[in-house]
Amino acid sequence: MPSQFDPPSGTRDFLAAEYAKREWAFGVLRSVFASYGFEPLQTPAFERVDVLLGKYGDEADKLVFKILRRGEHEASGEADLALRYDMTVPLARVAAAYGGQLPTPYKRYVIGPVWRADRPGKGRFREFTQCDVDTLGTRSPLADAEVLCAHHDAMVALGLTDFTINVNSRQVLAGLIEVFAVPAELAAAVLTSLDKLDKLSPADVITEIAGRGLAEATAGELVGLLTAPDATDRMRAALKPSDTGMAGLDEVDRVIGLARAQLPAERIVFAPRMVRGLSYYTGPIWELTAAGVPGSIGGGGRYDHLIATLGGPDVPGTGTSLGIERVLMLLDDDVAGITGRVDVAVPVLGEDLAEQSFALAAAARAAGLRASVYLGSSGKLGKQLRWASELGARWCLIYGHAERDADVVTVRDMVSAEQEEVSADDLTQYLAEQTGADPDDAAAVWY
Amino acid sequence: MPSQFDPPSGTRDFLAAEYAKREWAFGVLRSVFASYGFEPLQTPAFERVDVLLGKYGDEADKLVFKILRRGEHEASGEADLALRYDMTVPLARVAAAYGGQLPTPYKRYVIGPVWRADRPGKGRFREFTQCDVDTLGTRSPLADAEVLCAHHDAMVALGLTDFTINVNSRQVLAGLIEVFAVPAELAAAVLTSLDKLDKLSPADVITEIAGRGLAEATAGELVGLLTAPDATDRMRAALKPSDTGMAGLDEVDRVIGLARAQLPAERIVFAPRMVRGLSYYTGPIWELTAAGVPGSIGGGGRYDHLIATLGGPDVPGTGTSLGIERVLMLLDDDVAGITGRVDVAVPVLGEDLAEQSFALAAAARAAGLRASVYLGSSGKLGKQLRWASELGARWCLIYGHAERDADVVTVRDMVSAEQEEVSADDLTQYLAEQTGADPDDAAAVWY
Repeated sequence: MPSQFDPPSGTRDFLAAEYAKREWAFGVLRSVFASYGFEPLQTPAFERVDVLLGKYGDEADKLVFKILRRGEHEASGEADLALRYDMTVPLARVAAAYGGQLPTPYKRYVIGPVWRADRPGKGRFREFTQCDVDTLGTRSPLADAEVLCAHHDAMVALGLTDFTINVNSRQVLAGLIEVFAVPAELAAAVLTSLDKLDKLSPADVITEIAGRGLAEATAGELVGLLTAPDATDRMRAALKPSDTGMAGLDEVDRVIGLARAQLPAERIVFAPRMVRGLSYYTGPIWELTAAGVPGSIGGGGRYDHLIATLGGPDVPGTGTSLGIERVLMLLDDDVAGITGRVDVAVPVLGEDLAEQSFALAAAARAAGLRASVYLGSSGKLGKQLRWASELGARWCLIYGHAERDADVVTVRDMVSAEQEEVSADDLTQYLAEQTGADPDDAAAVWY
Repeated sequence: MPSQFDPPSGTRDFLAAEYAKREWAFGVLRSVFASYGFEPLQTPAFERVDVLLGKYGDEADKLVFKILRRGEHEASGEADLALRYDMTVPLARVAAAYGGQLPTPYKRYVIGPVWRADRPGKGRFREFTQCDVDTLGTRSPLADAEVLCAHHDAMVALGLTDFTINVNSRQVLAGLIEVFAVPAELAAAVLTSLDKLDKLSPADVITEIAGRGLAEATAGELVGLLTAPDATDRMRAALKPSDTGMAGLDEVDRVIGLARAQLPAERIVFAPRMVRGLSYYTGPIWELTAAGVPGSIGGGGRYDHLIATLGGPDVPGTGTSLGIERVLMLLDDDVAGITGRVDVAVPVLGEDLAEQSFALAAAARAAGLRASVYLGSSGKLGKQLRWASELGARWCLIYGHAERDADVVTVRDMVSAEQEEVSADDLTQYLAEQTGADPDDAAAVWY
């Protein structure tokens, strides 16, 4: 039952474990994208309302969170700002604002939250992370292949290999519409229906297309072609009369050929019936599907007029979007490899010994370890060892009056319960040897 | 002049260089806080409006960005959500929501944006990053010293060492009020005036305090004590009649003593006239000042009733806040150590050679380098070398028809202009040797 202390509907609090997993994944993604020469971009959470609205149609506008004007204007009930709905409208604004300062082509990635006032549901949030990789300013199919390869490498770096990249082209689909003489006004609806062949039976799709106004015989031929075992060969043959269709096939072959220069051939296939909903695509399109996961886990394509439509300069573009919230659900919870809340627990066995406990914790940190001093009120070792155990600490540094008199610290292995006396001066070196870490290496990254 | 493409007033776009600097700093901070056993927390950008409003007074409420209700409720002009104003109200909500699931004490850090509808100005933003470290659930002075030490270590890890931590206690100040018999209703105003002794002359502060209603003679004695060269000694003597004041001095000495167990003694001092504005502090307080930087660059203290006041459980707390936007301004722009947009540029010297260029870029990435393939339309080497140079690439991998026939790649050092022929199969190993990197080490982190 939701309580008054829950986060707002459709949003989430990320405590330590979930945060570690997410931040690990984002770090992996940043490294992969940077390795391709994509640059990071971060824009504000909100934009002026006129920048955001009217870009994706009325339905999308209803999902935009609008921010009330402030001060004396608040009473007007009007909004002048709105939370970003996606990462593409801000990209269009940035391309317009910094055109000359940006390299050409402009290759950027972005990882950050977007907000949509959608009805919350299983796996559907009102605040969720989007991860986009885009290249603006070139029509080269190499750019399409590059964002696609970066997307591929990102999935592999996250540890996911059981997926397929399905490639098609809007020009292939346009050619299909052309050779089957589908009336222009029915084209979009017919393609939308064909896209459902993964979910619906061929008969249902034929019925749906016929219901939209296309002759049932033509609908049957279209569906027959796309569901045939040799659909790709039949597609290639069928498109011969259409220059657009043939150009689309060339596009598909080029992107797949370039990608296969660096990734396993079986991970990328021509998928002639994949439509990829959004209407702004103009060239190659692709979608990633994972075994056992319904729907897509990301995808993208070429969009040569979108940036201008969104208020930016008239530059061609291509990009891919990672479906990162779905991808995160596919990862193991402990993928970040962080165990225990700390590595080293440091009891405090007397008020006069607390300074030394602080110094011991600092020595453990110098070995690249996470160390925490006991902050409770008990002076008893037994109770403090239980605290260390609850924290999941690997070692406990015991320093009582006996240790003070002998000028040592007792290092307790919390797994084996073995104890060893170590000189305080040697502690950093000793712990570094236990972990195999280089004490001069400050590179330990813990989230 | 602001253009329609600028980000909203008081917000910023972070392009590659600025993003790299910020993300580097945040990574350093996360590592330091984690090394103390502080856990990360991330809450949504917005909270329900009733969670946020009425917590910090009317002035703060005016600065909250409120989000309009959606759908049919939009016309009401009412807000039901609001962007977070700080990180403490969300912490109070989280402490209430997950009490039993959180460790005791709960040590958490948070780095993320907050939003305030303040008048934008130099260094004052409407969207800015807050970085807080807090411990809830213990009254131990060790907890105060621990957040303070974590704050200290974070500054040092960022490369900043020229700062001082000024420590005082609200109990010291309460004792001062007591021994000078300042009427209770004047206490807060008198302390606020005394806090201005860094900016105003002693005479001006005396006048201001007298103007608030305190006898001018008493004001003079107070200011005289706090501005004396031996102010700390005189403070210790003056507080003797006050139990509260003496408890405050013990508190200050304890925190400083614990901190000095692990940090240079000169970085932390007793600062008897430091008041630290916010009234919710109940124990030790501290503020960081850097040479040549006006005001503070962070600070904190103990707040034993704040979480309950903010709607959370009645738990004691202590915490520190990093003033990260100011700290970022103190860092060198190239502190992240990232040079050039890529390390390796890969020309494409013929349409039939593009696949090989893709494979060469992949081989460079396998050596931990950032590599980018030429996406432009020129087939000329000279033009593509200029492109490589503009990117700041360290190496250029030249693969023309001559290289194809000889089964090699020409590696051009962009600094020395020297070229070497390398077998494509050996390229990863060759580049790794040039950089001193281990090709099996996938840990290269580029933002």
